[in-house]
Amino acid sequence: MTERRYRRIQEVLSKRQPDLSIMAEDVYKPHNLSAMLRTCDAVGIGEVYAINPTGGIPTYNETSGSAEKWIHLTVFKTLQEAHTLVKSRGMQIFAAHLSDEAVDYRDVDYTLPTCVLFGNEKRGVSNEAAELADQHIIIPMLGMVQSLNVSVATAVILFEAQRQRRDKGMYNAPRLGSELIKRQTFEWLYPKEASQLVRDEKAYPELNEEGLYKK
Amino acid sequence: MTERRYRRIQEVLSKRQPDLSIMAEDVYKPHNLSAMLRTCDAVGIGEVYAINPTGGIPTYNETSGSAEKWIHLTVFKTLQEAHTLVKSRGMQIFAAHLSDEAVDYRDVDYTLPTCVLFGNEKRGVSNEAAELADQHIIIPMLGMVQSLNVSVATAVILFEAQRQRRDKGMYNAPRLGSELIKRQTFEWLYPKEASQLVRDEKAYPELNEEGLYKK
Repeated sequence: MTERRYRRIQEVLSKRQPDLSIMAEDVYKPHNLSAMLRTCDAVGIGEVYAINPTGGIPTYNETSGSAEKWIHLTVFKTLQEAHTLVKSRGMQIFAAHLSDEAVDYRDVDYTLPTCVLFGNEKRGVSNEAAELADQHIIIPMLGMVQSLNVSVATAVILFEAQRQRRDKGMYNAPRLGSELIKRQTFEWLYPKEASQLVRDEKAYPELNEEGLYKK
Repeated sequence: MTERRYRRIQEVLSKRQPDLSIMAEDVYKPHNLSAMLRTCDAVGIGEVYAINPTGGIPTYNETSGSAEKWIHLTVFKTLQEAHTLVKSRGMQIFAAHLSDEAVDYRDVDYTLPTCVLFGNEKRGVSNEAAELADQHIIIPMLGMVQSLNVSVATAVILFEAQRQRRDKGMYNAPRLGSELIKRQTFEWLYPKEASQLVRDEKAYPELNEEGLYKK
């Protein structure tokens, strides 16, 4: 049981893409953010940024498909703070935003370090965020309705990113450092023990090939 | 105003794909079905099939983005009825279903007449429906969570279909017959008048280039 879970965690971490992320600007419906995190997990995104002026994290419905356990969500109070962090990590920013300069979401390169910005359910991406973005992208809408639900738009765009990164072999070898993989594996496999060790300011023990350690 | 709306409707109908559809098997959350219809509209699907044993149509939240006005939704009480109709229209059926024979959703051909089957939020595609399908398809999940929300999965798959059909030029010329386009245009532009004419068993009038007709 532990061994199977250990192997699954190792497999998932071997596919995580540290240079791919999303930024959710004031997305306020918990089920939307929850669905967005689930998609992120599915394409190998491990870190997500949210901007929420109240500084709080929207609460999710706890469902069997919940992804919050597997995603590091960092909430910023201002766009500027989030932008500074993403830029310090060398990522280009694509805003899902209809404008004169917007291009088809399939015509941009997600294999470079990339963060995709999604706006609020009602107002979309703010003017300020649209200006800070390196590129505006749109999903071609061929019907009467003009826009998609934000969690749906996230999935459409991120699975294009997954396709491009798969075609380039970016899921074939681990892209997280081995130390980070070790730490994350321990935390996912032994969350309570990990918290205790952090409180005690002790290092995590090494895991053997079955995911076990000497207590 | 009428003219602009008339042109928009003509444009949308010129992209409708009569040989692409989805079947929703017992999807019971209104917001999921609503999001699925919105995606259908966006990729040019005009007819959707739902199987709902109670025979009722789930009610939707009326939102600005609501697509029910633009989609013909046919609800069947049994899978068998829906299957018979779809097959009589010459469509292959892809079931979004994890099985030993399932292939990556990007490795199948959506430019042939195709209906994609999606299952219930909790149980997924039924065994009976899985057996009736011509092919099982899956969305590769690279994370800890094993499945996507049904409306998210629908969008990921249908935008792949849109990509394939766009690459083949299937949106470049109308694929609905001109009579059907005329009828649908009148019904979308003048819904009340269309209902009255149907009740009176009268034909719809011809529209001029500005979308107007002689009363």
